[in-house]
Amino acid sequence: MKFCSECAAPLIVEVPEGDHRPRHVCPKCSAIHYQNPRIIVGTLPVHQGKIMLCRRGIEPRIDMWTLPGGFMENDESLAEGALRETWEESKASVEIEQLISVISLPIVDQVHCFFLANMPVAEYSTTEESTEIELFAPADIPWQEIAFETVKTTLQHYINSVQQSLTKPYQVCNTTLGPRKSDTY
Amino acid sequence: MKFCSECAAPLIVEVPEGDHRPRHVCPKCSAIHYQNPRIIVGTLPVHQGKIMLCRRGIEPRIDMWTLPGGFMENDESLAEGALRETWEESKASVEIEQLISVISLPIVDQVHCFFLANMPVAEYSTTEESTEIELFAPADIPWQEIAFETVKTTLQHYINSVQQSLTKPYQVCNTTLGPRKSDTY
Repeated sequence: MKFCSECAAPLIVEVPEGDHRPRHVCPKCSAIHYQNPRIIVGTLPVHQGKIMLCRRGIEPRIDMWTLPGGFMENDESLAEGALRETWEESKASVEIEQLISVISLPIVDQVHCFFLANMPVAEYSTTEESTEIELFAPADIPWQEIAFETVKTTLQHYINSVQQSLTKPYQVCNTTLGPRKSDTY
Repeated sequence: MKFCSECAAPLIVEVPEGDHRPRHVCPKCSAIHYQNPRIIVGTLPVHQGKIMLCRRGIEPRIDMWTLPGGFMENDESLAEGALRETWEESKASVEIEQLISVISLPIVDQVHCFFLANMPVAEYSTTEESTEIELFAPADIPWQEIAFETVKTTLQHYINSVQQSLTKPYQVCNTTLGPRKSDTY
């Protein structure tokens, strides 16, 4: 971030009055340009006890398996975003059951939220983002080929909940993964 | 958003290749400037069955009561952000117990996340943001003077959970409040 998006003046970095953190501030129009974490939303679609995974057709982690998900957009709820991403990546129509995981990833300034979703019919198709889509029994999950830690954590949490015969709604897995940026840079 | 924050060129609004939505795009350097929902994090601090509320010293909703909370920052987890905001607004040291609510507010492109927190000692003090801080028994909550719907929903969900004698961890309240922007503009 180098220039003010309101007036095009070069930005400076300073702690605004009444704030505690350095921000990108415009010395000309005084606009403060905040940067905040972004939300990833997705679903864990289940059809007759099997979990739908998508093989990624795009970077990062191309060719690895993932749950459908992506950046939450403005003007939608978490659940709406999760349904939209599921449709975009797999053309699957699913029904939201409950929030199943909320995972902070401070290293990349993201929060990942997954919903357990019921998939009444096993209808889906490959897309530009997904080169292969498959239903996996819990015992057959390709753990070594899962694209993201948050997806792995979400799958493990769901499978543990089912195996412990917990009744729905399941507890939401809320955790933090990975180091802080301040730990590594 | 009028100018490119990378090269200062005037932005245009168009649907980038492979995308489905209009974005702010730079015709000079091709940067795409996404806008995404922001996260509000806070706590519901409980000391010996009483809930800590803060009277707002700043707009919006000045003089109304709220739970401590504010914008999640980069390089922190949800729980860390909630603890930071609680300290900044009330100088209270609390211990995170569990995520208690996750509420989408598409009308303002926000997601509000509150944590139930234990407050071992009743130590707190007013700040620039909070002109008065008080512990309320559930029966004494000033419902007519609660600043935000998400705070009201979070308080009601917690009190219902306690009154139903549910054991911890409580279920997370996950819901959406208010209309879409597309409903109103």
